[in-house]
Amino acid sequence: MLTVFGSLAFDTIRTPKKTTKDALGGAAAYAAVSAGHFTSIGLVAASGSDITTDHKKTLGRYANLDGLAVLPGKMFRYDGRYDDTLSTRTTLKTELNVLADFEPSLPDRYRASRFAYLANNDPDQNLALLKEFDNVKFSMCDTIDFWIAEKRPSVIKMIKNVDALVINDEEARLLTKEYNLLKCAKKITKMCGVSYIIIKKGEHGSLLFHKDEIASAPAYPVEQVNDPTGAGDAFAGAVMGHLASRKKKITFEGLKKSMAYGNVMGSFAVQGYGLGGLLRIKNKKEIHKRVQAYSKASLTVGS
Amino acid sequence: MLTVFGSLAFDTIRTPKKTTKDALGGAAAYAAVSAGHFTSIGLVAASGSDITTDHKKTLGRYANLDGLAVLPGKMFRYDGRYDDTLSTRTTLKTELNVLADFEPSLPDRYRASRFAYLANNDPDQNLALLKEFDNVKFSMCDTIDFWIAEKRPSVIKMIKNVDALVINDEEARLLTKEYNLLKCAKKITKMCGVSYIIIKKGEHGSLLFHKDEIASAPAYPVEQVNDPTGAGDAFAGAVMGHLASRKKKITFEGLKKSMAYGNVMGSFAVQGYGLGGLLRIKNKKEIHKRVQAYSKASLTVGS
Repeated sequence: MLTVFGSLAFDTIRTPKKTTKDALGGAAAYAAVSAGHFTSIGLVAASGSDITTDHKKTLGRYANLDGLAVLPGKMFRYDGRYDDTLSTRTTLKTELNVLADFEPSLPDRYRASRFAYLANNDPDQNLALLKEFDNVKFSMCDTIDFWIAEKRPSVIKMIKNVDALVINDEEARLLTKEYNLLKCAKKITKMCGVSYIIIKKGEHGSLLFHKDEIASAPAYPVEQVNDPTGAGDAFAGAVMGHLASRKKKITFEGLKKSMAYGNVMGSFAVQGYGLGGLLRIKNKKEIHKRVQAYSKASLTVGS
Repeated sequence: MLTVFGSLAFDTIRTPKKTTKDALGGAAAYAAVSAGHFTSIGLVAASGSDITTDHKKTLGRYANLDGLAVLPGKMFRYDGRYDDTLSTRTTLKTELNVLADFEPSLPDRYRASRFAYLANNDPDQNLALLKEFDNVKFSMCDTIDFWIAEKRPSVIKMIKNVDALVINDEEARLLTKEYNLLKCAKKITKMCGVSYIIIKKGEHGSLLFHKDEIASAPAYPVEQVNDPTGAGDAFAGAVMGHLASRKKKITFEGLKKSMAYGNVMGSFAVQGYGLGGLLRIKNKKEIHKRVQAYSKASLTVGS
């Protein structure tokens, strides 16, 4: 089982073509729906009492909801606008609402999870939750600029306690004060002793670092990008979900394979609006087909 | 034989660490030195009378210089400054000098070249030179924003007459007025009917388009980037040089292999200052070693 801890949100996303108002989103939703294609998921998240039965049904198709705390008050809300190129998003408004006082805890049946994905939550909360697991085999966390600026020591402590960090290029630069991403990875390894680092570069794919090894995973090329929201969370969820499904020793080569699934799930995510791109996937065949195309498109050299 | 037509320059390059003054550079120098590791090169370029014997010796180690026109007057000069991240370069000064009135022509012994690389020259000159070949098997051209703005019809006509276009992402966007690079490639194919398109994304690698196929080639990761000048030319030169050396039918798969060599030569280029990174390569072993590492680092998926 993979436990996913992150935010649920009602997102208002303004793209040049379309504005989607108060749609179900948040890192946990993207990661859980994406990972749910590969393995069984336990969701730890806070919801407002304004969550509908339909929303719960949707999430329930991909994840166990024992860890979903429906709290009095309103759902966390996010409002943002993309520029014409869909490469830059400006935040117009955030309302923390029920997230402000949420104290996450692990339902008993999640304690035995061998895999844990801790999204870009408060690093102290991620740390506390991590301690509630009995026997985690592989844990990965994300973080964002806000926590790096506000709670730097906690962020570092959190990274020290997981097996893998997944982080955006700009945030890796902010954390390390280096520009070159290889230098960023070296510095994070030195500061935090984390075994695997994945640096996400948006439409340019991602880099995997482990000891002296580096892998470069280009993004799956998509002609019609509609809404990049949640692509990074879909990527991370799929990486963890696929790793969990393989039931093998975690290795650099294994992570490379899982990253292909991550890139493919990210590509589905950006083709729809909100969660739509991920929810539209009918079956695993669709995913495997795209992974095969991805494999063919990625450059390999040999005789 | 691969004929390379491009500019020679005395470059002043200001990087955060070091300023190199009046060093031998220019698209033709980078492409020829890079390609010269793989096949025999004929260089078509104009030089000022201020070119030294040492410069000629350097170029002569990688290319035949029958097509080097040493003209009365001064060498083309370029002066530019990189920002702290080495990702943006501002042009401070250009002096065309001998380039202003240069009329390139093909030495007799280059006419039989089966491969032609036409760097970012005046598109009308590229077109005229292309007609002087007897029997070209594969030709590739580059272009820049200046020509797209000033001579758009000629740029399009030039692209119609070559087998492959290599172009930067920003220039592909300028040419097509599309943002998404897949849309850019489709539009260029439609406008110009060119068979292969390589869109370069700097540190993020490049994309290859051919009919309905796409390949994504990440850059070779380099920790110490010193001077990105000429990396794109080194890439293009190596792609063409490696293709020429294979003596096989040109295919999508073949181009993917050659692009690995292109990426590796680009990585050598950025590690030095000016031509230094390319000139420092001792033998082919060094190149092959890095291509193998590149192959390992590039993501491949399978069972």
